[in-house]
Amino acid sequence: MLYIVGLGPGSLDLMSPMAQEVLQKVDTIVGYTTYIKLVKDFIQDKEVINTGMKREIDRCEKAIELAQAGKEVAVISSGDAGIYGMAGLILELLSSQGSDLEVKVVPGITASIGGAALLGAPLMNDFCHISLSDLMTPWEMIEKRLHAAAQGDFVICLYNPKSKGRPKHLEKALKIIAGYKGEETIVGIAKDIGRPKEETIITTIKDLDDRLVDMTTTVIVGNRFTKVYNGMMYTPRGYKL
Amino acid sequence: MLYIVGLGPGSLDLMSPMAQEVLQKVDTIVGYTTYIKLVKDFIQDKEVINTGMKREIDRCEKAIELAQAGKEVAVISSGDAGIYGMAGLILELLSSQGSDLEVKVVPGITASIGGAALLGAPLMNDFCHISLSDLMTPWEMIEKRLHAAAQGDFVICLYNPKSKGRPKHLEKALKIIAGYKGEETIVGIAKDIGRPKEETIITTIKDLDDRLVDMTTTVIVGNRFTKVYNGMMYTPRGYKL
Repeated sequence: MLYIVGLGPGSLDLMSPMAQEVLQKVDTIVGYTTYIKLVKDFIQDKEVINTGMKREIDRCEKAIELAQAGKEVAVISSGDAGIYGMAGLILELLSSQGSDLEVKVVPGITASIGGAALLGAPLMNDFCHISLSDLMTPWEMIEKRLHAAAQGDFVICLYNPKSKGRPKHLEKALKIIAGYKGEETIVGIAKDIGRPKEETIITTIKDLDDRLVDMTTTVIVGNRFTKVYNGMMYTPRGYKL
Repeated sequence: MLYIVGLGPGSLDLMSPMAQEVLQKVDTIVGYTTYIKLVKDFIQDKEVINTGMKREIDRCEKAIELAQAGKEVAVISSGDAGIYGMAGLILELLSSQGSDLEVKVVPGITASIGGAALLGAPLMNDFCHISLSDLMTPWEMIEKRLHAAAQGDFVICLYNPKSKGRPKHLEKALKIIAGYKGEETIVGIAKDIGRPKEETIITTIKDLDDRLVDMTTTVIVGNRFTKVYNGMMYTPRGYKL
């Protein structure tokens, strides 16, 4: 059996009991080095297959091979494994092989939900997720989605907002969004969610200090009604108070 | 202290250890009757305040009042409390009162993530959430967002897809989406996630039997590249295989 497990944001107290049970019972755990560190309590006496980033295909092929040979295998992702994680890649590989291997996806708390809880309640009205990484999606498509999401006044969760290879993506994205929502729109930033260095910042598109954002950061841009109160960011649901 | 706790889809094995710890330690649990049933293991010797649906404001005001009087109180929502749940309403009420009561939001696995894991991996590319309930958002705004999301070819998670008061909302929404993505677009349906009656259906916009959908259902409409393999629905991330 092949399990694809979402670990949640990083701390054990946000990892589901189902995920913890699977990690305890499998023979082999497969994942990117940073994620293996998150499950260090579970890896004694187990086979661990970890490789660096950008080796996802190798890792998933290896996991499939071991599961096909009869091992109980867990492939891990931080957050939820089905949101820009490993679950889709595993299914793509099985499909291309014509394999009928049984898989089970164990859901997890994704970064936007973990971050939103720290920031207050920004996701109380319709929202979307857009990854700013153009490694696998053309930048033109990302821009098209930014326009669509801003025009519909969705709350917008930006994943992979910035990296060394794409230092200007966040700036470009916020400029597109501000064109519809205005520069005073509230922005929340959550860094290293569920980890010791956990940090949140609430600001506006205009005042956002881009240097505070890196790959471990989730950026949540409010809708036109999002407000700040007592250090928390919230989007009204529409109750008549 | 006032905790706002997301219970996850319904089963204990998808409720975070943090949520379970909070439910164990508080004096009072406040929630809609259906949610109180989900936490029946935690309510011995506790004050429980439950009311029917559409009494959210009363419940949250009562919770705030008790917490201000020094009690440890947990307001509960199924899924994540910050996604169309109680977290936003609590912050709106505190803001309108000018209260500086300390609140902590405990995140949970929302229905789309729980449902996606059962269906396969539909959320592997950019996606959005739209509630089809027009109790608090005008239908014109919902339609505007459906057009925007379909035009941007987002995977679309529809919450509150249908109820007795709005039997035609799902049909109208799918018609708008099909206008951009086509009628052959894959649709996944997850019902009663994490509960004994749990059920999933994978079909297309054209073949969807609307009678299978009710308020406990999450509907996930794929993007133009979403595929079905071996009974699972997945959206390619963009890997070159």
